[in-house]
Amino acid sequence: MENQTILYAIPVSGVLALIYAFFKASWISKQPEGTEKMSKIAGHIADGALAFLKREYKVLVIFVISVAILLGFANSGREGTSPIIALSFVVGAFCSALAGFFGMKVATKANVRTTNAARTGLGQALNIAFSGGLVMGLSVVGLGILGLSSLFIIYSQMFPALTQVSEVINLISGFSLGASSIALFARVGGGIYTKAADVGADLAGKVYEGIPEDDPRNPATIADNVGDNVGDVAGMGADLFESYVGAIIGTMVLGAAFVPVFNTMGVNPVIGVTLPLIIAAVGILVSIVGSFFVKVKEGGNPQTGLNMGEFGASIIMAVLSYFIIDYFLPASWTVDGFTYTSLNIFFAVIIGLVAGVLIGMITEYYCSTDNKPVIEIARQSITGAATTIISGLGIGMMSTGLPVLVLSAAIVASHYYAGLYGIAIAALGMLSVTGIQLAVDAYGPISDNAGGIAEMAGLPPEVRERTDKLDAVGNTTAAIGKGFAIGSAALTALALFAAYRQQAHVTSLDISEPIIMAGLLIGAMLPFVFSAMAMGAVGRAASDMINEVGRQFREIPGLREGTAEAEFAHCVDISTKAAIREMILPGLMGVLVPVVVGFISKDMLGGLLAGVTSSGVLMAIFQSNAGGAWDNAKKRIEGKIEFNGVVYGKGSDAHKAAVVGDTVGDPLKDTSGPSLNILMKLIAVVALVIAPLL
Amino acid sequence: MENQTILYAIPVSGVLALIYAFFKASWISKQPEGTEKMSKIAGHIADGALAFLKREYKVLVIFVISVAILLGFANSGREGTSPIIALSFVVGAFCSALAGFFGMKVATKANVRTTNAARTGLGQALNIAFSGGLVMGLSVVGLGILGLSSLFIIYSQMFPALTQVSEVINLISGFSLGASSIALFARVGGGIYTKAADVGADLAGKVYEGIPEDDPRNPATIADNVGDNVGDVAGMGADLFESYVGAIIGTMVLGAAFVPVFNTMGVNPVIGVTLPLIIAAVGILVSIVGSFFVKVKEGGNPQTGLNMGEFGASIIMAVLSYFIIDYFLPASWTVDGFTYTSLNIFFAVIIGLVAGVLIGMITEYYCSTDNKPVIEIARQSITGAATTIISGLGIGMMSTGLPVLVLSAAIVASHYYAGLYGIAIAALGMLSVTGIQLAVDAYGPISDNAGGIAEMAGLPPEVRERTDKLDAVGNTTAAIGKGFAIGSAALTALALFAAYRQQAHVTSLDISEPIIMAGLLIGAMLPFVFSAMAMGAVGRAASDMINEVGRQFREIPGLREGTAEAEFAHCVDISTKAAIREMILPGLMGVLVPVVVGFISKDMLGGLLAGVTSSGVLMAIFQSNAGGAWDNAKKRIEGKIEFNGVVYGKGSDAHKAAVVGDTVGDPLKDTSGPSLNILMKLIAVVALVIAPLL
Repeated sequence: MENQTILYAIPVSGVLALIYAFFKASWISKQPEGTEKMSKIAGHIADGALAFLKREYKVLVIFVISVAILLGFANSGREGTSPIIALSFVVGAFCSALAGFFGMKVATKANVRTTNAARTGLGQALNIAFSGGLVMGLSVVGLGILGLSSLFIIYSQMFPALTQVSEVINLISGFSLGASSIALFARVGGGIYTKAADVGADLAGKVYEGIPEDDPRNPATIADNVGDNVGDVAGMGADLFESYVGAIIGTMVLGAAFVPVFNTMGVNPVIGVTLPLIIAAVGILVSIVGSFFVKVKEGGNPQTGLNMGEFGASIIMAVLSYFIIDYFLPASWTVDGFTYTSLNIFFAVIIGLVAGVLIGMITEYYCSTDNKPVIEIARQSITGAATTIISGLGIGMMSTGLPVLVLSAAIVASHYYAGLYGIAIAALGMLSVTGIQLAVDAYGPISDNAGGIAEMAGLPPEVRERTDKLDAVGNTTAAIGKGFAIGSAALTALALFAAYRQQAHVTSLDISEPIIMAGLLIGAMLPFVFSAMAMGAVGRAASDMINEVGRQFREIPGLREGTAEAEFAHCVDISTKAAIREMILPGLMGVLVPVVVGFISKDMLGGLLAGVTSSGVLMAIFQSNAGGAWDNAKKRIEGKIEFNGVVYGKGSDAHKAAVVGDTVGDPLKDTSGPSLNILMKLIAVVALVIAPLL
Repeated sequence: MENQTILYAIPVSGVLALIYAFFKASWISKQPEGTEKMSKIAGHIADGALAFLKREYKVLVIFVISVAILLGFANSGREGTSPIIALSFVVGAFCSALAGFFGMKVATKANVRTTNAARTGLGQALNIAFSGGLVMGLSVVGLGILGLSSLFIIYSQMFPALTQVSEVINLISGFSLGASSIALFARVGGGIYTKAADVGADLAGKVYEGIPEDDPRNPATIADNVGDNVGDVAGMGADLFESYVGAIIGTMVLGAAFVPVFNTMGVNPVIGVTLPLIIAAVGILVSIVGSFFVKVKEGGNPQTGLNMGEFGASIIMAVLSYFIIDYFLPASWTVDGFTYTSLNIFFAVIIGLVAGVLIGMITEYYCSTDNKPVIEIARQSITGAATTIISGLGIGMMSTGLPVLVLSAAIVASHYYAGLYGIAIAALGMLSVTGIQLAVDAYGPISDNAGGIAEMAGLPPEVRERTDKLDAVGNTTAAIGKGFAIGSAALTALALFAAYRQQAHVTSLDISEPIIMAGLLIGAMLPFVFSAMAMGAVGRAASDMINEVGRQFREIPGLREGTAEAEFAHCVDISTKAAIREMILPGLMGVLVPVVVGFISKDMLGGLLAGVTSSGVLMAIFQSNAGGAWDNAKKRIEGKIEFNGVVYGKGSDAHKAAVVGDTVGDPLKDTSGPSLNILMKLIAVVALVIAPLL
């Protein structure tokens, strides 16, 4: 195939994804919304979500413009740098924000239509919820690949000499910086919003009047449902946009090392750089194909459909990767004494995939209701909240063991086969079918919302049962998704780290050097302080929420009896304000710390990257698994569980203790935990971008 | 002064410490025990503690013999190694165990005599409790310095050539290995014992009949008091023995690098090696002098006395260090292009001291009842246990920030002044007055025990009030002690790490190498898994305890009414068995993992050391501060606290939530947290010892 043709075909796949997403979105819009009450509730949720996104983006615009100006100035008039990097940054930020906006817009339409479809059956409800998720997934990969490949084509024409390839890639790393910074703010802001509303609604219901969290009389309940959209849909979308883009760019940077050798071999010299784009482009098409497998018959198990879609797409992609790599890369070549083969690079991709699946399976083992760890937490709940918490913390910490061993093995093995390029492409292997992966992830909160709407609109219980069934499945696939997120984050951070070392011309990062050790310690500390900030924010915002609910119960006559309507908008406003206010400090920390440390010493910054990666991986796994296990221990008790002849269920003391665990786990698993994956990559990208300035 | 004279004077200071400790112990024995009931209760506690120590040491003897044989074989017939290292190992283990035994034996005599003295006043009670602690402190430093310096003298005569100095030091590192492995088992075993009994007694009291933990009807109450002795006295003693010895040996290893230069300068060539021993020996004398300052007048504040003793000793020691360093070291010398001066080495000592005090002050800020963090946890307790836990976790994580910055600054600064030797001697600076430091630390559990005995013996409330007053003070000094423990652990681990690099001939530990990165990740994971094991052990043992208490209440007629006696011995037995059983796996992990990883790759082991140090420091600070803050939030509420016009006190819902926090914090602050300081040094020592074999 001709070089130019293949290069221009890449953005086309992005456009295709967006067109398909647009069709799916229109189809969803055409589905009926159900009763007037449903429509009204859904309207409140959609308005709240949109209002949050607008406010969030207003803050982010200021941030993006400021950073763009700084980037532009800092990169002016220096050898090997160009102010154009500011353009990449703005485009990256814009694409990320746009993907989040698209996804959330459609999710807030799909939720009520899923509820309505669930009034008659399961099949169409699954179809709508999954289609909503698919729009998010395709928007993310479509905009990601379109933005990246367009910039690459433009910059390649501006700097056509082969010696300028690494300059081009350096410019493109600005795109990743844009994506990462938006992702961190969106994840933290969205995470604070959703958990403040969730914890607030939960506790407020308990503190005042024993009203359940989805009860229409609970004023925080709309905010809670808005939270699912801004946190679990828009926040997660930005998160995966960042992972996806980061993995591609990480591989591109390292592929630049092949240029001189490929050139002498008569191979397309930049194929090491464009290969990740090609794999990603094919992954988009495979994701679309995979989405056709997602179906459920009436009475069937929706899990089967989701598994078919996701695993089907992964297997097809693995097979195709072999042919792509074999076709585009030479059979073998040698750089700096290391001999690469196309087969070994394929092995690295497979190592990434296998590691991701294994980490996902381990995650599922620790968090699933059917396994020993969750049952142990449930058992410990009998002696009260303290033992629930101790056992959950213990299980969360223990659950870091195997994933880290898998990850370490993957790092060593992929490096053995294909050097640093192997590590980077292993991460890409996990993320190549992000399109469908994200569709499955985003399907969860849509079904969750659908259930909330059913409850608030007072629909018959079988509707809620159906949406609960939708919500309950997808756990396995979501666990695999988590595995991919953590695994790829670590590998990508590592690839970016190696890239930083190259770009900053750091000759050796000897960890026994005190300055590097100091950097390592400070880096390892950041995930702790960052998590503390996120948790503190959730705690403060939840307190505000509880007080507001109390005020409404005191001041609105008839609210308690269900004859007057709660002032939902006030609660939405509290969550919005708190999330915006509280996301700024941790977000800025992620951007500023590496800059400050880098200007103190670029060696210290190297140590910092190693520290933040190692401790970030551990804290992310610990927090999300502890949270997941507590969540499911509560669910397990709700489904009744027997110990020593006594049956414990909803309302038992053991259940009350388990609810405490679940509430503690909420901010860990949905706010601080997932933000750490972004934090470690953001810090690495910032280091990479500022490397030429140090 | 003549070289030989000063060398032989060092063990004499150790002997002096032991003689003084013996006199103090005899004095304590001569004090009256009080009523027959008191005597009987104290007898139960002393018997339980001794029984545990015997069982523990039986297991450890097998471990020590096995490792000694392995060490002997592995070090036979290789260049630069000698099987004599096994002897050092056995002596180190024996000295550590003996110090623990002495300390605990006297502590279990001092407790009841403190209670008895508290029947008449505060002064004599303080005197007895502090003397009990002083015996522990002086046994630790006395045996430490006696063992170390004797071995050094013997080995120096066996290998008299100057070229053999590093061989001699390598042999002595076996002493540190012995101390570290006993410390890990003793800390973990003791920690599990004390918290299983504490959590068990606490929850059992609540689950059955609402009986307070110190109530004589609670069958777990004797076990709880035994726990204070085996965990907080014997366990902590072994811990500090290990720190003390580790810091001295770490400095000795690095001081070997000065031998050739000093030799050409006409200075005592091994003075860099013996200097840490000299400083430690002087520190012993200063500790004894400091102990004379600890006095309280009737009606006075015992805090003043303790402060006088500890800070007085520290200041005297700082001043003396200047003269010692100035006297023994040349004004300046150059090794490998780095110029050392005696003044700069003194600066490194001061940097260590200042860093330790700062970390201690930060610890106190986060954990003291008077400050914002603890008050915030108390406030969050109003909305229930979930918010108590979330805020405590957040505060624990946040509290890692400043100490890590201080530590990093200390590393960089002490290295700037005096290279790696500076880092090691900074750690020694913190630990030079361990004798009195440990006396103050061990005084706490003795007073605590005294209070328990007062309660169980049914003495009038003013006795308990006096012992509570004794127990409550010493918080500041204990916080400073914690700061020293964490700071010195990190610096010592770093010094041992550097020593490992030298001994294993690892040329560069470049952290961006995948094999080292994999080691880093695995190392960072160990503190998580280790903590999980410790917490799981406490949970399981506490459950057993709760069940046993339940059984006794069901099966012993009259127990509930207070007419029958509880079967205390059964509970003691449960704690003992659980602690012995559960300490083995985590203890072995600490010893075996570095060996396995080292034989895979010595570079990977380097990464592992960096990982376990960085993540160990963070997890240790996080866990002990979260635990400390929860503990004091509960105490703060018990002392009544007002929010928005409502007063919360003992028995309020806020108090119940705070009790949950306190119980969760117990294993974190007293079992897993403090064990991590040992774990990171143990792993580094194991690496150092096996380095010649790799």
